[in-house]
Amino acid sequence: MAKDNYYGLILAGGRGTRFWPRSRRRKAKQVLNVIGDSTLIQATAGRLSPLIPPERLWVLTNRHLRAEIVRQLPRIPAAQILAEPEQRNTAPAIGLAAHILRSIDKDAVMGVFPSDHVISRPARYLRLLRPAFRAAAQGRIVVLGIQPRFAETGFGYVEFPKEVQPGSLTPYPVVRFREKPSLETARQYVDAGNFFWNAGMFFWRADVLLDALRRHLPRTATLLASLPAFGDKRFSSRLKRVFPLCENISVDYAVMERAGNVAGLACDEIGWNDVGSWDAVRALLPADADGNVTRSEALLAASRGNYVDAGDKLVALLGVENLIVVDTPDALLIADRARAQEVGGLVKALEKKQRWDLL
Amino acid sequence: MAKDNYYGLILAGGRGTRFWPRSRRRKAKQVLNVIGDSTLIQATAGRLSPLIPPERLWVLTNRHLRAEIVRQLPRIPAAQILAEPEQRNTAPAIGLAAHILRSIDKDAVMGVFPSDHVISRPARYLRLLRPAFRAAAQGRIVVLGIQPRFAETGFGYVEFPKEVQPGSLTPYPVVRFREKPSLETARQYVDAGNFFWNAGMFFWRADVLLDALRRHLPRTATLLASLPAFGDKRFSSRLKRVFPLCENISVDYAVMERAGNVAGLACDEIGWNDVGSWDAVRALLPADADGNVTRSEALLAASRGNYVDAGDKLVALLGVENLIVVDTPDALLIADRARAQEVGGLVKALEKKQRWDLL
Repeated sequence: MAKDNYYGLILAGGRGTRFWPRSRRRKAKQVLNVIGDSTLIQATAGRLSPLIPPERLWVLTNRHLRAEIVRQLPRIPAAQILAEPEQRNTAPAIGLAAHILRSIDKDAVMGVFPSDHVISRPARYLRLLRPAFRAAAQGRIVVLGIQPRFAETGFGYVEFPKEVQPGSLTPYPVVRFREKPSLETARQYVDAGNFFWNAGMFFWRADVLLDALRRHLPRTATLLASLPAFGDKRFSSRLKRVFPLCENISVDYAVMERAGNVAGLACDEIGWNDVGSWDAVRALLPADADGNVTRSEALLAASRGNYVDAGDKLVALLGVENLIVVDTPDALLIADRARAQEVGGLVKALEKKQRWDLL
Repeated sequence: MAKDNYYGLILAGGRGTRFWPRSRRRKAKQVLNVIGDSTLIQATAGRLSPLIPPERLWVLTNRHLRAEIVRQLPRIPAAQILAEPEQRNTAPAIGLAAHILRSIDKDAVMGVFPSDHVISRPARYLRLLRPAFRAAAQGRIVVLGIQPRFAETGFGYVEFPKEVQPGSLTPYPVVRFREKPSLETARQYVDAGNFFWNAGMFFWRADVLLDALRRHLPRTATLLASLPAFGDKRFSSRLKRVFPLCENISVDYAVMERAGNVAGLACDEIGWNDVGSWDAVRALLPADADGNVTRSEALLAASRGNYVDAGDKLVALLGVENLIVVDTPDALLIADRARAQEVGGLVKALEKKQRWDLL
């Protein structure tokens, strides 16, 4: 039975520029139905619901996305969907949420969840969330590690004890957090078997996190402590002044790597995927015999390994391979699959040109 | 000084399916601005105007295209823009026009002009049209030969005498018409120097052409002779019955190859191009340093040799090469440039699926 002092914080401030031209300032990756019928943030809230009902879910996002998220998550009280006054990294955002939750419920235990990941086996995932919350309720700082499927260099790793059993419901003492490794190091991690991906899923009591911030990030902690209670009418104006002064730092660097005595749950195959690019989407969806994934009507001739997403439009491919094709009413992307990670660079180029109409 | 018995017949019944998705049944290649600001048929009428004013230009097209052509060529009397009741090849179409012109002007001399070719040096071209018309007025059947730029196997060739001087204003006796050759033969033709491309530009008196049809295509000649005069109110209904019974054959096979004593004008560089595919369009337009030709706004990253035509839409290319990209509101084509000739096959596939909305 879930406890009524378990809260979920969904972090939804990211831009997901690698999903341009579908992703825009007001339509970031987390509010797109990148996979399947619901959007990523809807799926995130949905899979948590057996443990954390919507009335105990909170969302932190930015001013461009808030209205869309309120629309997409009607069961979460709109007051719990907050826009950060300015983009900061995860430490101030999580600190803010902890401050609010602590003022609402002095026993609040919070889980932090990215809003834009896929988990294809939610039941297996939930099994591990319960001991994570339990350990957090006992005062521990907890991280969920994802069993690595390959030598990814884009994630941080969590080093578990050598005897770790993926899928075990017992928390392990975390040996160390490891920053994004070189390819060679990543390979050693995967071979070793006791290094897990850090997917940004953390659990702690709100007061424990605030204590940790006071110790490791005192400036931000002091600023947050200066905020009035959440219901106070001065809260919003005060937040606008205080939040931009907080340090721009991730909770990983600010807290996790510095805290001793972190507990870790080691996931086995929960089907986690951070869906980092259009090519990752392609890999997650069923393909035809020639490796083409088509999310809209397509006419394919001598074409292989393509991803096509063009709404109501028919797309005809003739003699092309390994292309990402994403069409929207005002912008069309055609990219080599191998460069799907570089789509964010196109967005930067558009920002430089001040093409806000396309951003 | 042009003679007032010189008439122009513009053949505009083709579909130009290789220009899909821009070309449709009601928007065939000849009514598109494939190159530059005017459409191909507008450019055709325009370049003839110093020799043949609009009131002596006639157009043969089909029922899908007639309204658009009437709209695009407002200076040509609408009654002179005719829709063939059914698609036939060039022999019946030209025979029909000769029948009409002969009934209007017994001394009519007609030049036949495809509607969908480009001629970048119209003044040089016009210089050769005058002797072509003059020789036709004297009772000759005349063909204009285009100096070949490479060993094209998609055209027929006209064999001139060995002493031919390209650009000469004197008509030569044509030695022979040659059908589309093999690559090896085409190379020999180009090396020989006295073989010219047959671009479908012919000149004759209307009565001479009708005589030739009587001799070489008697069934069609008899059917056309049964039509009432052009102004007669029964003309249209009678044509609907008669035209479909005519032979489906080109004037090249039916007349040119069988007629003796054909005269030929040999063009030098008039900048003729039949613009046979999107890749031909690409070759005709200015490219950037990486060989990209963009007819709409484009954001190019690590991309080379592409052709982009997407109306008002921004197209972002990332790491792609040698693509034809043509976007329309309901269909998007992405083709390897080397397969630009095969675009017509996509149209056939859509016909098979009865996707008239896209045709």
